[in-house]
Amino acid sequence: MGVVRVGLIQMLVEESKEKNLSRAEEMVREAAGRGAGLVVLPEMFNCPYSNEFFPPYAEQEGGYTWQRLSRMAGERRVFLVGGSVPERGEDGRIYNTSYIFDDRGRQIGKHRKVHLFDIDVEGQYFRESEILAPGSRATVFATPYGRMGVMICYDLRFPELARLLVQKGALVLVVPAAFNMTTGPAHWELLFRCRALDNQVFALGVAPARDEKASYVSYANSLIADPWGRVVVRLGEEEGILVEDLDLGEVEKIRAALPLLKHIRRDLYEVREKLQD
Amino acid sequence: MGVVRVGLIQMLVEESKEKNLSRAEEMVREAAGRGAGLVVLPEMFNCPYSNEFFPPYAEQEGGYTWQRLSRMAGERRVFLVGGSVPERGEDGRIYNTSYIFDDRGRQIGKHRKVHLFDIDVEGQYFRESEILAPGSRATVFATPYGRMGVMICYDLRFPELARLLVQKGALVLVVPAAFNMTTGPAHWELLFRCRALDNQVFALGVAPARDEKASYVSYANSLIADPWGRVVVRLGEEEGILVEDLDLGEVEKIRAALPLLKHIRRDLYEVREKLQD
Repeated sequence: MGVVRVGLIQMLVEESKEKNLSRAEEMVREAAGRGAGLVVLPEMFNCPYSNEFFPPYAEQEGGYTWQRLSRMAGERRVFLVGGSVPERGEDGRIYNTSYIFDDRGRQIGKHRKVHLFDIDVEGQYFRESEILAPGSRATVFATPYGRMGVMICYDLRFPELARLLVQKGALVLVVPAAFNMTTGPAHWELLFRCRALDNQVFALGVAPARDEKASYVSYANSLIADPWGRVVVRLGEEEGILVEDLDLGEVEKIRAALPLLKHIRRDLYEVREKLQD
Repeated sequence: MGVVRVGLIQMLVEESKEKNLSRAEEMVREAAGRGAGLVVLPEMFNCPYSNEFFPPYAEQEGGYTWQRLSRMAGERRVFLVGGSVPERGEDGRIYNTSYIFDDRGRQIGKHRKVHLFDIDVEGQYFRESEILAPGSRATVFATPYGRMGVMICYDLRFPELARLLVQKGALVLVVPAAFNMTTGPAHWELLFRCRALDNQVFALGVAPARDEKASYVSYANSLIADPWGRVVVRLGEEEGILVEDLDLGEVEKIRAALPLLKHIRRDLYEVREKLQD
């Protein structure tokens, strides 16, 4: 459990898939140039966050976007959590999917958003479930720095999923996400801090930059929370890259001082994963 | 699900049990006089928070402190969550126990702290487990306003327990507690806000007033968080009573706008209570 330099890519997502991929590539290169060993893209980084775009932008696993991502990771020698993209599943349904690559460009994980975002509050209306199908796995991947878990945006609201990932060994929760201008100011920081604190892990939130002209306006504010529940660093609304060293030794140190995970009363209750293959 | 006026008693706990009981009585009377229908005392309100005091202060269920609490509730016609006190169990072990009474003074619930607080961080050292035995139940009680769940202090750190209480119908989490001057500033507000938000309930934290001369210094700051994760009101460090109307209709309203509890993926994971009698 050493130090991992992470790069969080808060990129502006446009309508052109090609431009989005080029921009991602550019920013991954910059993060790698600044020494990042693990780079994270935001949710739906190749596609505007809007139900009408998901079907035409969807690709199968191994498709064009997947290949571009694999190449970015391999060429820049970084572990890459490829934000998320609309995936056309083998069943023909569309998923909100994160592909994860090692520093040779090989896929080492894949997370399909398991909680679909349906909201109708204060002018914020969105129903992912009208178009998307949900995933059914808690996704952890291995790196030389330690294990990490992936959640996509709304997944973050469910403490059970974070706990499952941590029970599977995750020291870092990596969360491509896109909160909006209602839920962002109210809940974004709170949720990252609390998941990090409860599980004594690092939690990384990576959002698209804010675009006031988009139909769904991203709150942005990509951030890192540490195992004591503090916000370590945080971007604003503009496009930018957050590069930061995470000392994963902090996790053990804090777990020794306040042994929350040991104090979980497994005899009284448990969070149990039910579906696995 | 109507409106319940709650009274949070942030009292100064002294060494004299008799004085503590009289002070509690006085403050419960005041809260009732201001219209509170549910009154909550802090953790270990009849006893200094220190392992050496727990055995000599411990009483059996139905003992002197219990009777005083029952009378306070019945005479003032309030539902009373009696903070917590050291209880001498039928097995001879000592528990950190909250007795709950209805407005006739009849016991309607009893919670024994299930997570014992052991910490060794930045000069804060405390090991409840050296003296206390843990409870083994998730405690919910019924009121005319709706169901409520009880956690004691360190219990709050475990999202599973809050979820269990909410799955058992709790609309309010009532938490007698005593965070310290290390964990208080870092985590007190964060945890109440996040448990309230994740479960879309009200969460009440009730602490002893701060006493800088005590061996364990309470952070105080009794507060109420609402189902949107906001702090509604909050006391400072001084002794005081917080009286506030909770509109439990808020719970349904927020659950309709952002249906988190419906979106829990019970097919993928579950928080399950294992011990019950």
